[in-house]
Amino acid sequence: MATSNKQWLLVSRPKGPVEESNFRLVEKEVPALQDGEVLVQVRYLSLDPYMRGRMDEAKSYAAPQKLDEVMIGGTVGEVVESKNPAWAKGDLAVGMGGWQQYFVSDGKGLTKVPRGLPESVFLGAVGMPGVTAWYGLNEICKAKAGETVVVSAASGAVGSVVGQLAKQRGCRAVGVAGGPAKCEHVVKDLGFDACADYKAEDFKERFKAAVPDGVDCVFENVGGPVFDAALARMNPFGRVALCGIVSAFGGQDISIKHVRSLLTNRVLLQGFIVTDHMELWPQAMKELGGLVAAGKLKFRESVAQGLESAPRAFIGLLKGENLGKQLVKVAS
Amino acid sequence: MATSNKQWLLVSRPKGPVEESNFRLVEKEVPALQDGEVLVQVRYLSLDPYMRGRMDEAKSYAAPQKLDEVMIGGTVGEVVESKNPAWAKGDLAVGMGGWQQYFVSDGKGLTKVPRGLPESVFLGAVGMPGVTAWYGLNEICKAKAGETVVVSAASGAVGSVVGQLAKQRGCRAVGVAGGPAKCEHVVKDLGFDACADYKAEDFKERFKAAVPDGVDCVFENVGGPVFDAALARMNPFGRVALCGIVSAFGGQDISIKHVRSLLTNRVLLQGFIVTDHMELWPQAMKELGGLVAAGKLKFRESVAQGLESAPRAFIGLLKGENLGKQLVKVAS
Repeated sequence: MATSNKQWLLVSRPKGPVEESNFRLVEKEVPALQDGEVLVQVRYLSLDPYMRGRMDEAKSYAAPQKLDEVMIGGTVGEVVESKNPAWAKGDLAVGMGGWQQYFVSDGKGLTKVPRGLPESVFLGAVGMPGVTAWYGLNEICKAKAGETVVVSAASGAVGSVVGQLAKQRGCRAVGVAGGPAKCEHVVKDLGFDACADYKAEDFKERFKAAVPDGVDCVFENVGGPVFDAALARMNPFGRVALCGIVSAFGGQDISIKHVRSLLTNRVLLQGFIVTDHMELWPQAMKELGGLVAAGKLKFRESVAQGLESAPRAFIGLLKGENLGKQLVKVAS
Repeated sequence: MATSNKQWLLVSRPKGPVEESNFRLVEKEVPALQDGEVLVQVRYLSLDPYMRGRMDEAKSYAAPQKLDEVMIGGTVGEVVESKNPAWAKGDLAVGMGGWQQYFVSDGKGLTKVPRGLPESVFLGAVGMPGVTAWYGLNEICKAKAGETVVVSAASGAVGSVVGQLAKQRGCRAVGVAGGPAKCEHVVKDLGFDACADYKAEDFKERFKAAVPDGVDCVFENVGGPVFDAALARMNPFGRVALCGIVSAFGGQDISIKHVRSLLTNRVLLQGFIVTDHMELWPQAMKELGGLVAAGKLKFRESVAQGLESAPRAFIGLLKGENLGKQLVKVAS
């Protein structure tokens, strides 16, 4: 039985880009369980752009990460000890375990997930990113066959699912991603109809060519000039599922220029956060899990090895260095 | 029986601000009626910001105004001759008669309105501006008692109705308008709870003080910095009825900076054009007409005298010189 628990604490707030020195690795004892509690050993830690927002003092939709406490983060892990009748040793538990090897929970906020699929999938295509894609496409865009769906950060954990679900609905799926390697992956591996590289000098022309019939739905993960390019090509009664503005996580302002298009095209824009809609998660996870099991929903993972690598991998994620869902493998 | 019909034609497209030389006054004969047609004498012509968009070649949601043709415009007038069984001499007809003294119609697009209210009201509080206010507040904002509703161009034909309807729903109604005179009118005459003068140097502080509980609904007629000020104070699950961006009718770009607020506050933004929703007009006009008749919906008009004054009055409207609904009295 392990008694030592490595943890990453947030020890300072970034001024501009995140640095490794914002975090500190510490080692604590694994606490003894009280009645009703379980001990979970983390297998995989999820790294996500939203964590950057939590590192700031500024008011976001959630409280900021407290200093000198364990960084928050989604995890999938195995119950290694249980004093809670709802949980047995060996159960697989998805929850917000944080950047550490072990955590104790009273069971609230933990979801039991079935064995059979790769464990890490519950942090990606069948986890928060997948459900985010499912929600935005189904509940906001309501994409219909024949429509054009544009998704930014198309090779990422959310974007890759958006495009594949759109294809299954009979839509034209157009991705926007950074660099030829990501764009090739989006088209060749994930089956998007097209992908425009926003780092290319002629991005605007490439994007225009990729949406010959205009844009009916934008699933926006990035914000900024990429978002504007999509707004400029919007069709009447278009929809925007505003999911993220990762381009602004460096702290700079984010603005859009094509406000006129929102009016003249009578666009519906809805900002959303998938945890507001927990009642839909079981349905979404069931559908997404079925698609993964049937080989109809592909995903790629970037896996950093060992809890020690978490800050470095997180900084890489913010720079767009990952391809697919960014994970940290904490234990085998 | 009149045989001469004065008309304003659009003869050139503005490069920058609209000039009187963009229009030319001509005199034509009133055409003879065919079977099924009516001749309407225009009493009042409505001048509206949307006309500026139509003057450009650029694609808008509607086709541009053609050169050397009569400028489009909403009118209320009296049927002076009828060869259409649905219309009798003396009927009051609302429609798109344009910038002229007389027009012939086959009845399509004409709405018969009752006598008893001042005729001009069907171009304002009980016409397109009033229905626009009604639609945005009821169908998009869905404002509830206790919520704060912000409306820009608050002294205008649309904004003045938005605030009064919001008050009747038990909301806090906060206007934004240009200059102390307009703001005083909005609060003292129309009964808004507060009004912030966007021309004041300390506008941001004034606006902040006017919305101590944040903003739940923005009825946006202007765009630009005023819109941003409202977005910066948005409450979670706020709504934006995007009705107009009059600040951009001079041709400049329109942009917003607080895109982050749309995401973090899960804001719903809907661009809309009230003519997409003709099925709701009878209900809206009935409610609005009832409120006007009961003295519960106040409005102010700026009336320019004579068709000749239309271009000058229109340019004044674009500069914000009017107070309330801008009309041209074409005939008594």
